[in-house]
Amino acid sequence: MDRYGSQYGPDVTFLGAERCSLQDPDSLRACDVVILGAPFDGGTSHRPGTRFGPQAIRTCDYLPHNASRPSLAMGRDAFCDLIIRDAGDVEMFSGDARRALGQLEMAVESVASNGALPIILGGDHSITYADVRGVANVRGHGSVSLIHFDAHADTGHIEFGSLWGHGAPMRRLIESGAIRGDQFLQLGLRGYWPPPEVLRWMAQHRMRSYEMAEIEHRGLMVCIDEAIETALQCSEAVFLSVDIDVCDPAAAPGTGTPEPGGLSARALLDAVRRICSRVPLAGVDVVEVSPPYDHADITALLANRVVLEALSSIARSGEEGGDAQQWDPTRPLLDRHVDEG
Amino acid sequence: MDRYGSQYGPDVTFLGAERCSLQDPDSLRACDVVILGAPFDGGTSHRPGTRFGPQAIRTCDYLPHNASRPSLAMGRDAFCDLIIRDAGDVEMFSGDARRALGQLEMAVESVASNGALPIILGGDHSITYADVRGVANVRGHGSVSLIHFDAHADTGHIEFGSLWGHGAPMRRLIESGAIRGDQFLQLGLRGYWPPPEVLRWMAQHRMRSYEMAEIEHRGLMVCIDEAIETALQCSEAVFLSVDIDVCDPAAAPGTGTPEPGGLSARALLDAVRRICSRVPLAGVDVVEVSPPYDHADITALLANRVVLEALSSIARSGEEGGDAQQWDPTRPLLDRHVDEG
Amino acid sequence: MDRYGSQYGPDVTFLGAERCSLQDPDSLRACDVVILGAPFDGGTSHRPGTRFGPQAIRTCDYLPHNASRPSLAMGRDAFCDLIIRDAGDVEMFSGDARRALGQLEMAVESVASNGALPIILGGDHSITYADVRGVANVRGHGSVSLIHFDAHADTGHIEFGSLWGHGAPMRRLIESGAIRGDQFLQLGLRGYWPPPEVLRWMAQHRMRSYEMAEIEHRGLMVCIDEAIETALQCSEAVFLSVDIDVCDPAAAPGTGTPEPGGLSARALLDAVRRICSRVPLAGVDVVEVSPPYDHADITALLANRVVLEALSSIARSGEEGGDAQQWDPTRPLLDRHVDEG
Amino acid sequence: MDRYGSQYGPDVTFLGAERCSLQDPDSLRACDVVILGAPFDGGTSHRPGTRFGPQAIRTCDYLPHNASRPSLAMGRDAFCDLIIRDAGDVEMFSGDARRALGQLEMAVESVASNGALPIILGGDHSITYADVRGVANVRGHGSVSLIHFDAHADTGHIEFGSLWGHGAPMRRLIESGAIRGDQFLQLGLRGYWPPPEVLRWMAQHRMRSYEMAEIEHRGLMVCIDEAIETALQCSEAVFLSVDIDVCDPAAAPGTGTPEPGGLSARALLDAVRRICSRVPLAGVDVVEVSPPYDHADITALLANRVVLEALSSIARSGEEGGDAQQWDPTRPLLDRHVDEG
Amino acid sequence: MDRYGSQYGPDVTFLGAERCSLQDPDSLRACDVVILGAPFDGGTSHRPGTRFGPQAIRTCDYLPHNASRPSLAMGRDAFCDLIIRDAGDVEMFSGDARRALGQLEMAVESVASNGALPIILGGDHSITYADVRGVANVRGHGSVSLIHFDAHADTGHIEFGSLWGHGAPMRRLIESGAIRGDQFLQLGLRGYWPPPEVLRWMAQHRMRSYEMAEIEHRGLMVCIDEAIETALQCSEAVFLSVDIDVCDPAAAPGTGTPEPGGLSARALLDAVRRICSRVPLAGVDVVEVSPPYDHADITALLANRVVLEALSSIARSGEEGGDAQQWDPTRPLLDRHVDEG
Amino acid sequence: MDRYGSQYGPDVTFLGAERCSLQDPDSLRACDVVILGAPFDGGTSHRPGTRFGPQAIRTCDYLPHNASRPSLAMGRDAFCDLIIRDAGDVEMFSGDARRALGQLEMAVESVASNGALPIILGGDHSITYADVRGVANVRGHGSVSLIHFDAHADTGHIEFGSLWGHGAPMRRLIESGAIRGDQFLQLGLRGYWPPPEVLRWMAQHRMRSYEMAEIEHRGLMVCIDEAIETALQCSEAVFLSVDIDVCDPAAAPGTGTPEPGGLSARALLDAVRRICSRVPLAGVDVVEVSPPYDHADITALLANRVVLEALSSIARSGEEGGDAQQWDPTRPLLDRHVDEG
Repeated sequence: MDRYGSQYGPDVTFLGAERCSLQDPDSLRACDVVILGAPFDGGTSHRPGTRFGPQAIRTCDYLPHNASRPSLAMGRDAFCDLIIRDAGDVEMFSGDARRALGQLEMAVESVASNGALPIILGGDHSITYADVRGVANVRGHGSVSLIHFDAHADTGHIEFGSLWGHGAPMRRLIESGAIRGDQFLQLGLRGYWPPPEVLRWMAQHRMRSYEMAEIEHRGLMVCIDEAIETALQCSEAVFLSVDIDVCDPAAAPGTGTPEPGGLSARALLDAVRRICSRVPLAGVDVVEVSPPYDHADITALLANRVVLEALSSIARSGEEGGDAQQWDPTRPLLDRHVDEG
Repeated sequence: MDRYGSQYGPDVTFLGAERCSLQDPDSLRACDVVILGAPFDGGTSHRPGTRFGPQAIRTCDYLPHNASRPSLAMGRDAFCDLIIRDAGDVEMFSGDARRALGQLEMAVESVASNGALPIILGGDHSITYADVRGVANVRGHGSVSLIHFDAHADTGHIEFGSLWGHGAPMRRLIESGAIRGDQFLQLGLRGYWPPPEVLRWMAQHRMRSYEMAEIEHRGLMVCIDEAIETALQCSEAVFLSVDIDVCDPAAAPGTGTPEPGGLSARALLDAVRRICSRVPLAGVDVVEVSPPYDHADITALLANRVVLEALSSIARSGEEGGDAQQWDPTRPLLDRHVDEG
Repeated sequence: MDRYGSQYGPDVTFLGAERCSLQDPDSLRACDVVILGAPFDGGTSHRPGTRFGPQAIRTCDYLPHNASRPSLAMGRDAFCDLIIRDAGDVEMFSGDARRALGQLEMAVESVASNGALPIILGGDHSITYADVRGVANVRGHGSVSLIHFDAHADTGHIEFGSLWGHGAPMRRLIESGAIRGDQFLQLGLRGYWPPPEVLRWMAQHRMRSYEMAEIEHRGLMVCIDEAIETALQCSEAVFLSVDIDVCDPAAAPGTGTPEPGGLSARALLDAVRRICSRVPLAGVDVVEVSPPYDHADITALLANRVVLEALSSIARSGEEGGDAQQWDPTRPLLDRHVDEG
Repeated sequence: MDRYGSQYGPDVTFLGAERCSLQDPDSLRACDVVILGAPFDGGTSHRPGTRFGPQAIRTCDYLPHNASRPSLAMGRDAFCDLIIRDAGDVEMFSGDARRALGQLEMAVESVASNGALPIILGGDHSITYADVRGVANVRGHGSVSLIHFDAHADTGHIEFGSLWGHGAPMRRLIESGAIRGDQFLQLGLRGYWPPPEVLRWMAQHRMRSYEMAEIEHRGLMVCIDEAIETALQCSEAVFLSVDIDVCDPAAAPGTGTPEPGGLSARALLDAVRRICSRVPLAGVDVVEVSPPYDHADITALLANRVVLEALSSIARSGEEGGDAQQWDPTRPLLDRHVDEG
Repeated sequence: MDRYGSQYGPDVTFLGAERCSLQDPDSLRACDVVILGAPFDGGTSHRPGTRFGPQAIRTCDYLPHNASRPSLAMGRDAFCDLIIRDAGDVEMFSGDARRALGQLEMAVESVASNGALPIILGGDHSITYADVRGVANVRGHGSVSLIHFDAHADTGHIEFGSLWGHGAPMRRLIESGAIRGDQFLQLGLRGYWPPPEVLRWMAQHRMRSYEMAEIEHRGLMVCIDEAIETALQCSEAVFLSVDIDVCDPAAAPGTGTPEPGGLSARALLDAVRRICSRVPLAGVDVVEVSPPYDHADITALLANRVVLEALSSIARSGEEGGDAQQWDPTRPLLDRHVDEG
Repeated sequence: MDRYGSQYGPDVTFLGAERCSLQDPDSLRACDVVILGAPFDGGTSHRPGTRFGPQAIRTCDYLPHNASRPSLAMGRDAFCDLIIRDAGDVEMFSGDARRALGQLEMAVESVASNGALPIILGGDHSITYADVRGVANVRGHGSVSLIHFDAHADTGHIEFGSLWGHGAPMRRLIESGAIRGDQFLQLGLRGYWPPPEVLRWMAQHRMRSYEMAEIEHRGLMVCIDEAIETALQCSEAVFLSVDIDVCDPAAAPGTGTPEPGGLSARALLDAVRRICSRVPLAGVDVVEVSPPYDHADITALLANRVVLEALSSIARSGEEGGDAQQWDPTRPLLDRHVDEG
């Protein structure tokens, strides 16, 4: 198959998924889900390294890379129930953010226009500008909401003289018209950024941001359910963007701008499961995994599980009868699996 | 004293405990608890390194190695209240799993038959086959339950062509008749393994496995109390096996097959305390600590605390009057210690 | 400006704060808060490295070092609302603890006597002896309570033949008369130290220590509120001492004597916010950050956020109308910021 | 293509070389060189981790994995001049050394019997038993010499009760008759092992071992030329075995039993170039790269370069006219390349 | 002083050197040497991280940052003998290589046009395009030679679709006319890049490249003396560019594209001393230090010493009487220092 | 045996050597060599951690800890030929340098006065003050020379207000009269310290310091032979002090003040062998190994080999007939060992 493959290192796929190619639309058309690598850190304001994120997320798992991952919790193997292929990386020269993001946008648009759900492995968070635009170009600007896990609002203006840093993609998206401000649902914000003038800009655009104090006091699942409701009221589908730094640096040290006081890994995985079981998805990205700052691959592995949790939930929710609504997490593991086996 | 000592490095003991020797049954007979090292990683399916687990668990503590560790929470110094000795390592060549496990089984049996409680420091999880058989050979096959903290069920069949990998000890135990399937209580499972056919096998053998979704929704302590009740209904004593990967990789990065979304260190220590205070123990092992993947010794230290928590609870529960039942965790520290001082 | 600067490396300040100098009382007098570095590990009983704590805490942040950090949660930029300056390090030769602590005590006293709130960046915990005495020398012995987050009581007697180790400062403080035993509120204790005779000494001096079992069962915020109440009943002001090892080693691996089973980063930050919003502060120190054992700067960054959380809370609580009492954490982020903008 | 692929992680090949399969003899027959992975650490006496050596050696390079590596020094691209394929890993369960080595021996024999030169990526040094036997089974026992770079003689007898440890393969080879003692040329020995009785055994078998003191005083190239001469006098071909610990731990920290005082990376690469340019090769292995103990991949990269240096030299030496003899290292780089271009 | 300061972290200077500012030409005019940071990794083809190089090189030293570094070997303190200031960083957004390099070129030109020698701390090697152009714009295109220590020729054409990668600056310089091909003297090349067509291009432009085989056989000092002679024949001054990867990965692991078989640190420092003592310098840069891949700061410290060695040599060579020629390295240290003291 | 044991961690001995005790003079009197640990970093001016040096040096070896280490190069097992015991650590509180050094001096004096050769495992270099005084107190002030491998002269005056830092022990020794300046032979100095006034002081005291430029140009062995000759002319015995930072940071990253451009590990080991074979030794220390900054134990292992190299040379030189003079390093390993076997 003629394809770009991996920008760095050998051409491998997400846990052994079958290959497809952006150069071959037929290979995309057959897919439910297409995984794309965005090996880019040209938008990073501090620690780089996310260019190696896609490869780390694809390969860090300890089980065989055999395109099979049955979820214990959900009782589904997404690789069986869905057609999932990996289109390899988009070539993204980190020294030219504008061109790189343009190339990524075209690639995502190509996936979406062929009817597959794009899951993009970042890369720094600037890629979400391209990811969401690629989807919105197909589905229509203003038709998609963004549920966004992150320690940072990413609504900054200009950084180091550039419009394309990883602190600004959400502003660029709103400015471009791809998503309206009220279609933004941000969860996990904390710390000391952005400054008040940016917060005012965000408020003017009617964004909804759940800071950790609110999440702690109201409960994460309450906030998520509210966010889902809001999203579904104002749009037809949801793009889910997971910045791994929404987790506490204990669970995700391998990232560019860690901010203490975040979610546990358990909470993030449960949140992803809940959202992906309940909303129609337009796309997913997982960003800001920086392998040079990781230890024992724990951050890459968490991102890998975010993808698998999303895939397993999609596999289950797609079944006849809205099964996802009936899933009972308190039912003993073996009861479930035996019955369903 | 004539003894094997440590397979790697100098002959040291758990926090300075007195030495005993497998070659000298009298030295075992005098003990309430005998600590054994199982420096083995020949069963590991991915990252090795657990051969250095016993030494790391014995020595990582920052306090003097003086065989005294008064528990603040429990108000007991197990080294005072119990006779605890360290028999050193069993020689286990990682390149010959079958022989190594056989040697360990004999060693554990020797401890148990001399009336002491064996606590085995692993080593990868394949050692639990030997640990539990060693105990069951003395107490009778079918007389012991296993409470098992782990991210993985460890009930696989054949791995890399071998029956003896660390993904299979629980199946081998059931096949061997040492423990029945319904005597298995597994807590903390999650992720994407094992596949459905293995889950069916587990269900057929009536194992009870608490996946993290169930634990999150019902509460860890509720699940533990239920597991204790089940265990006591079908057996006379409990073997406690703690795979350190039951904890989240944040708390336990130094392990072979980390799985995001696990318990916090606090939760694991509380769980061990609860179980060891309430059940008659037949043995304990702590496995899967892999020092080459650890950072700042935090994983080894956690395993060290699992052992101490078990020892302190045993010391307290062994007292006249079933004191453990009356222990009140909400009582202020100094109130308790003063009264008891 | 004539000042000592940094003991190690270039002369930098906490996130770009303006400089002041201990040699120039006028420069202190103008301040609300003075930050001091105590680059000392001469009291450490195990892993050293805290001598590099002050520099790491000052510089680890990923945002510009521009003396501006608007808190998302609190809606205040302490650097705007307060006059915060950094006096650099006190020269502390780690090979002469007694002299070093004496120099630090004089420096803190100098800050306090000029009317500024001292925030000291440690350094190992032995520095709290100097920090609290420096404050109490000005406010009066017996007039200040200590709220103390720590895995360890730090009330030991003699360590390696010395009175000045980091396991003993709280005993030295009580012996010196600077603080009475009943003015001690310790939160987060756990593990296997100190031994019963030390606990008896603590009880005799009527210290109040919240072990983690109590905190887990009663809730951290309940315990904190009780501690605040106790502190305010018996003193005019509170010194807050945060040993970073109160957090679990997952969140704070870079420390000298990590003890598994501690607080999450989120819990610690919320606790600091609560205390600093509600009590009149006499001083703050953050201790036991050891960069050589840190990974990806996560421990230093957590300590940095402890300082910022304290500063932001002080900024808010100092406002007209006791605003801190009315702060509503469940109010959406952008609602708050817009209204207050 | 039906093949085993990689034992750990995705199925990748050495720098993008074409795949071949042990299951498909035709695919081997077409090759000049076949690369095989031996992902094994079951023979390791101390630090494990070499099971991840093959994957690290295959993938650590920073250039595109495009099966092209023109050597600057030699002016040849081995991937152009030779048919080089990668047969993937042999499945080797580290917990059963005997079986694993048997499987490797069969695989190497299969490569050799199909007329290709096997290059085996270890794995611990116990694999050399299988590697050399696999070759000698085809070429005839006693027909091959071994030039062996190593800090250790690897002629021990029984280790942890086993005959199959990585300290013994050279004794096992001699005992098995595959190679005679006088066909052993060992370079780089140093340190404190083996003991005198083993040295006597070695002397009795007329092995030739160059300890570092001899190498330092006589010069490495003098010793190598003497070793080549010896080898060619008593055999038809040479197997080259490079234990990466022949280099100083500065250059090769990622290994199981580092021994200070070894060769520089430069010296090792020059030595490999010299040997592979001048002798008929029967096989090559590169062993003892342990990624968990490596830093920034420098050890894996050195092993990767050992393989490339061997390949480039083979490519040049195989040319018409014995060109390798005429290679002039003092000729300026661009002179050479222009003329030859 | 109004200046940009540091792009990342606090505004510090090279070992405490006095500040100057690009915004204030007078502050440059007073200098013999101006140090500039180029915190850029947007040209990196593999591991990023060089954006943190300038800060690491400035601050990694263990001695006081007091702008004094008397060279033992040379008997000169460059900070006394020369006016050395640090202009801080040029703001270089790594996501826009073209703009960033343009800004750096202007900055270097500004230093050179004010009569000071620029020493630029990289940054990846793409910055040399800007560094040399900045100098050549002032001195005249074609008037400066480049002596270039590197494992790689850096004469590639297009990389990831860009002209501005760190594998291409030397080609871009020749194409731009700033330096002619015959004014290039490259030392330390090795490995497997560039391919023959690039080598032909280099030969056509009459570059002179010393591969490691030539250096090993002829001797480094012989090659350097020849390179110096060549440089002085065809130009008025020399720009010295030191890519830290010219050293072996043992000495310089913290770099983006390490290539085994390089120089020792000792050899590089001696080489820099020799060149800087003997040629009129137009500028110096030290590039490719990547702190995220460094260990214990050894790579940054080596780069720091390269700068100091250059400064000390300049200080000595600038003295009346061409003293540098008479420097006798065999003279005992204390003889020299006493006489000169 | 009543003894202090280890200050940190379990009571282990150097590679399994028999224990002796400072409290039991008889146990010392029986020894040829007594090993002492000096777990101290209170004199360190920068990175601490040498308090863990003694334990790391004792335990880092990969071979069994069985008190047997036959040297391949020298053909002697020092543990057989000499009576070598380990007296454990001297308790040295790093926060009180003066007291700690006093205690060490007494301990060394006790060893020397009982007729054994003291080998002290540091600890930072300030311990050499105590080590040499302990010896000189017994042998007579002025009767011992010091051969001193180090990147630094360690002749500073006051550091951080103290006389006892690790930059000053050589000055303190001269001032105390224990050794005269002309009895100092320093090898390996380099870098940018000390300043001229200290060099003048050194010259006035007629010290002899070999800077690396001299060593490079004249050859290390020439310089060593000259140093030996000088030492033997002015004293009866030699104390050998090896600061591990004399080696290049590539070989010894785990140290407090690394200085690029040092010796290779090979060169240091050969140098130690030469000296210890040829001079009557009064004592040896190995200092400045800092495990927190080490990687894969390579620095500790190098220090371990320095001790073993010294012991093996002593074992050989002590034989009848001055055998050491006749040792021929060019003789093939197996020739030697067979004849001598």
